[in-house]
Amino acid sequence: MKAQILVIGDELLAGKIQDANTQVIAKWLIKEGFELSRVVITSDERESLMKALKEAWDNSDLVLTTGGLGPTEDDITKVVIGDFFGGTLKDHPVARSLATLHYKRIDKDWSPQTNSYHLIPEGLEPVANPAGLAPGLSCAREGKLLVSAPGVPRELKAMLEDPFRKLLDQHFPKRQNDLQVLTIRTVGVPEERIFFELMPNLWKELSEHGKVSSLPQVVGVDIHISFKGDKKALEEKREFWKSRLKDTPLAPHIWSYELKSIEEVVLEMAREKNIKIGLAESCTGGLVANRLTNIPGSSSHFYGGIVAYHNEVKVNILGVKEETLKAHGAVSHETATEMAAGVLNALKVDVAISLTGIAGPDGGSEEKPVGTVCIGEGNREGAKAKIYHFRGNREYLKLRFSEMGLHRLRRIIEDL
Amino acid sequence: MKAQILVIGDELLAGKIQDANTQVIAKWLIKEGFELSRVVITSDERESLMKALKEAWDNSDLVLTTGGLGPTEDDITKVVIGDFFGGTLKDHPVARSLATLHYKRIDKDWSPQTNSYHLIPEGLEPVANPAGLAPGLSCAREGKLLVSAPGVPRELKAMLEDPFRKLLDQHFPKRQNDLQVLTIRTVGVPEERIFFELMPNLWKELSEHGKVSSLPQVVGVDIHISFKGDKKALEEKREFWKSRLKDTPLAPHIWSYELKSIEEVVLEMAREKNIKIGLAESCTGGLVANRLTNIPGSSSHFYGGIVAYHNEVKVNILGVKEETLKAHGAVSHETATEMAAGVLNALKVDVAISLTGIAGPDGGSEEKPVGTVCIGEGNREGAKAKIYHFRGNREYLKLRFSEMGLHRLRRIIEDL
Repeated sequence: MKAQILVIGDELLAGKIQDANTQVIAKWLIKEGFELSRVVITSDERESLMKALKEAWDNSDLVLTTGGLGPTEDDITKVVIGDFFGGTLKDHPVARSLATLHYKRIDKDWSPQTNSYHLIPEGLEPVANPAGLAPGLSCAREGKLLVSAPGVPRELKAMLEDPFRKLLDQHFPKRQNDLQVLTIRTVGVPEERIFFELMPNLWKELSEHGKVSSLPQVVGVDIHISFKGDKKALEEKREFWKSRLKDTPLAPHIWSYELKSIEEVVLEMAREKNIKIGLAESCTGGLVANRLTNIPGSSSHFYGGIVAYHNEVKVNILGVKEETLKAHGAVSHETATEMAAGVLNALKVDVAISLTGIAGPDGGSEEKPVGTVCIGEGNREGAKAKIYHFRGNREYLKLRFSEMGLHRLRRIIEDL
Repeated sequence: MKAQILVIGDELLAGKIQDANTQVIAKWLIKEGFELSRVVITSDERESLMKALKEAWDNSDLVLTTGGLGPTEDDITKVVIGDFFGGTLKDHPVARSLATLHYKRIDKDWSPQTNSYHLIPEGLEPVANPAGLAPGLSCAREGKLLVSAPGVPRELKAMLEDPFRKLLDQHFPKRQNDLQVLTIRTVGVPEERIFFELMPNLWKELSEHGKVSSLPQVVGVDIHISFKGDKKALEEKREFWKSRLKDTPLAPHIWSYELKSIEEVVLEMAREKNIKIGLAESCTGGLVANRLTNIPGSSSHFYGGIVAYHNEVKVNILGVKEETLKAHGAVSHETATEMAAGVLNALKVDVAISLTGIAGPDGGSEEKPVGTVCIGEGNREGAKAKIYHFRGNREYLKLRFSEMGLHRLRRIIEDL
């Protein structure tokens, strides 16, 4: 069964915001047994929206729209969808009670003077919004379904989780998801080296198991095999490829056979081995800590971090020696090693990494250009450091530094 | 002049990655004088791609594609664009020298055995890639232009900045950008309250100045007025609205008349007043520090932060009293105040904020539900704290906490 997404809003076409919803909906659709064939971002201008609605409705079983359901005058989705299905706005009793209910949750009274949330095009149904004020919409016709959610990511997510899933159960009760994806995650080796140097026959061999795709990541490459089958088939393929790739030139670069993030893998290992983690961040400015603490339950094994942006903080809190900074500079093996040792000591943790580097745009030199990072690592036995070089702009470099730091963290926990 | 974007790649439709390119291209198009009328995300499957290419080419002056230019077998963009314009792959001397040049930058030799980067469809031209290996493509016909870039964000950005801009100069030399947007940024008051309670005539009044849109943000609302005019007209409108909204009920909520982030505003103020900033983060886990250090030059006034995730770190590094934690809990006015005072003292900074709260999904209680955050603030004179409540999932709550924290930071710097 095919699905299409219509993202409605000038703010996306004007580059004012980034679309965070498509990925969320795409994942949800796969889980619900749909194939997403196309996403269209269109302006909240009547004619474009009508055209996009028609194309999407004609070519899919399920159309999901986001955006343009709010109370202000630029929110035209409800009216245009009504026109598309030939229904004019009518006072809808269910919409009235939903509006009252949604406002009660924020301790406010709703009335038809507040806004027009009680008006729904004839032939369409309002849908409860578990996390916001504006109701969603649904319309079932010709064995197809259209659902509309607000563009606010939190509200969209809440609608997918409950009311939209129930609508799918009602209208597509026999749907099933038989698409499986096996992911092989690698680090530190570019796409071309994998497929043209290390293992020139790998792509062909992988293709015998499904549709292959290869996706460069922040400091590595993901290899995906998509195929039709059940969870058991996925497990079998995973075991097959684990044993097939063992002792190959690719083996040292593989860090997961699942679509988990490096921060999840690090925290799982720390939990298994009951290890406390600490961080000393300079150039990444808290990004590594932020990534670890995005994972629910991270508080059990991530203890804390020192964002030592200014050298005085490196000296006063981490105990880096002033002579070290003077002799070798902030971005050096020596400073990174002392930072790692310092944070192990200050936070009383079992393992720690430190990151000091040059994220740019200024601060680079011929000897230490922008993109240089020194990553220290340590445990109760001692500390050491290693230098890496990356390319990119400031934010991307911070991301690559943090990713490589998390991979070092994985290694030192693994080795304990 | 109209432009459309085609984003090519199964990985987006499968929800494996989030599209970060569209916003970058959208901003670039506006700056270059184009109106982005539509974005289509399509799979790297021949038929869908052909159809999307035709629709985009027929309805715009400029088509920009991203993705599918890599070396592996799922990279079919080059071949399909060739077929669309009726040209078969040919050995192209410029493409050969570009491939050699791109590989030389990473100290590697390129040869036709490495990959097929030397083959370009007849009638198309290769485009240099300043930040990667795969060349881009361009095709000019019927007064229109199609350009193709790889999907890797860093490479795309580099191509926009130089080779694509030059192609626009060549093919659309007379283009001009006369679209201006005035942005009024507010905090702490929802959309409906602004337009239905505080200032019921505001929307109508704004509309006399251009096309109005209102966009809920993390803890506030942005109001945009788009209109045709030059930079001088924008400045005049900005001054007009600054004085028009002064002393209105909306005034205390407005924090910027420019499209700057709160972290930029905070760092600008700190620079003006020469103030050193420090942070003590628990629930936000380094996010506030990360956001501040994303801004180039932040090292001059952001000194550092303590990510005090575990209570032991709050006690040992920040000097929070164990009795305070025992009597009031980690999420309390008392702990937040001691955290702020502690970090002011430890890092020897002029101002600091602290954040301690419950980002969930676990850890909430009836008295302190998930979404509760206590934000401390302090300067050399003393510290205090305030409690806020938000809704959302873990990552969104961290974002909202951090945003509100940065607004508190703005206030205390403003007041100094």
